[in-house]
Amino acid sequence: MSTLEKRKATNLPRYAKIRQMNRGSYDRALANEILDAGLVAHCGFIHENKPMVIPMAYARIGDKLYIHGASTTRIIKDNANGVPASLTVTLIDGIVVARSAFHHSMNYRCAIVHGTAHLVEDHDKQIEALAAITDHILPGRWDECRAMMAKEHKATGVLVMDMEHVSTKVRTGGPVDDTEDLGTDLWAGVVPVTTALGQPFDAYDVPEGTPVPESIPAARRKFA
Amino acid sequence: MSTLEKRKATNLPRYAKIRQMNRGSYDRALANEILDAGLVAHCGFIHENKPMVIPMAYARIGDKLYIHGASTTRIIKDNANGVPASLTVTLIDGIVVARSAFHHSMNYRCAIVHGTAHLVEDHDKQIEALAAITDHILPGRWDECRAMMAKEHKATGVLVMDMEHVSTKVRTGGPVDDTEDLGTDLWAGVVPVTTALGQPFDAYDVPEGTPVPESIPAARRKFA
Repeated sequence: MSTLEKRKATNLPRYAKIRQMNRGSYDRALANEILDAGLVAHCGFIHENKPMVIPMAYARIGDKLYIHGASTTRIIKDNANGVPASLTVTLIDGIVVARSAFHHSMNYRCAIVHGTAHLVEDHDKQIEALAAITDHILPGRWDECRAMMAKEHKATGVLVMDMEHVSTKVRTGGPVDDTEDLGTDLWAGVVPVTTALGQPFDAYDVPEGTPVPESIPAARRKFA
Repeated sequence: MSTLEKRKATNLPRYAKIRQMNRGSYDRALANEILDAGLVAHCGFIHENKPMVIPMAYARIGDKLYIHGASTTRIIKDNANGVPASLTVTLIDGIVVARSAFHHSMNYRCAIVHGTAHLVEDHDKQIEALAAITDHILPGRWDECRAMMAKEHKATGVLVMDMEHVSTKVRTGGPVDDTEDLGTDLWAGVVPVTTALGQPFDAYDVPEGTPVPESIPAARRKFA
């Protein structure tokens, strides 16, 4: 079977001639959209003159970002007293395959935030931030859990970062090849990259018949 | 239908009682495995006393990491002459749902590399690195493309970073709840997170019948 016949047989889609975009911006609404869609952030801070980059759960409330960790960890202790910090969220959407290696690229959405991190001292603000971090990953999850205990609260450090400087970089669309490379017999296109949640697994010690809570998206999708 | 009946009907799997692991290491083989499996890295460097974190394509050759960018960009210019840099690759495997918010976590594999970045000056080494970066994402892709032109080569800066300090952090397995929370009617488990390549799309200007090259994994999977 020829490639053309295969493509017809399988309805291999063509990448639409959409406006190709590869640009940076300072659009706050777009940055918020990317920040809210991410699963983990890569947090940057400086430790002994070295750039540290650590993956972290996080949440946005208005124009503030929150991360948390054990009170004893470096990222909490180093950043407690107002030093420059950053938070980057990257969503990968596709591998852009061009005729030339030079024009290969990725489709992605990235938000980069710079600010100054501080320890959150206020009890209610800490709880609000911890709830937001939990609900960022699984909306509604915080209220399903048993209430946080004082010793758990004490063991957790919460940092807040004002979104002082925000930038985004987004690439969409197909490859942009040199005119001389068009009309050759070289293929070009986009391989989509998708990150998805799968069907949840029960913990081994969950009794048979325990209802799967509403916040678990795959369960909700499956059983709704 | 009860949850139990639903679970039976859909064969909802249970999370096996595997050894839960949440630990750091300095295991080079494990770090290499994580680095080789990642799609993008988050590169850290310091610019005007601020921690910069940028998503980048990358490749590993032995105990060196390579990134590239337009010769004119900040990450290439700032790091050309041997300043501390870092590269973090994070693979997200699942959302760990515990009875308490406190014990929620993520399953992930993370490699963090620190070193000193330098501009690669040697022409052949540059080409080797650029081929490795292209092939890291789509193995075999470099040889399928038309040869790189001198002007493209000139416009591209390649940085090398010796892997001077390497650490990994890996979490696997189900939630670890407090004993007091077991035996309640609260659910716990793991929601898998998967990043996958989809069926490729043709660029709009690819002539009908153009063969999809071998390096494109979804096409190969589909048509093999």
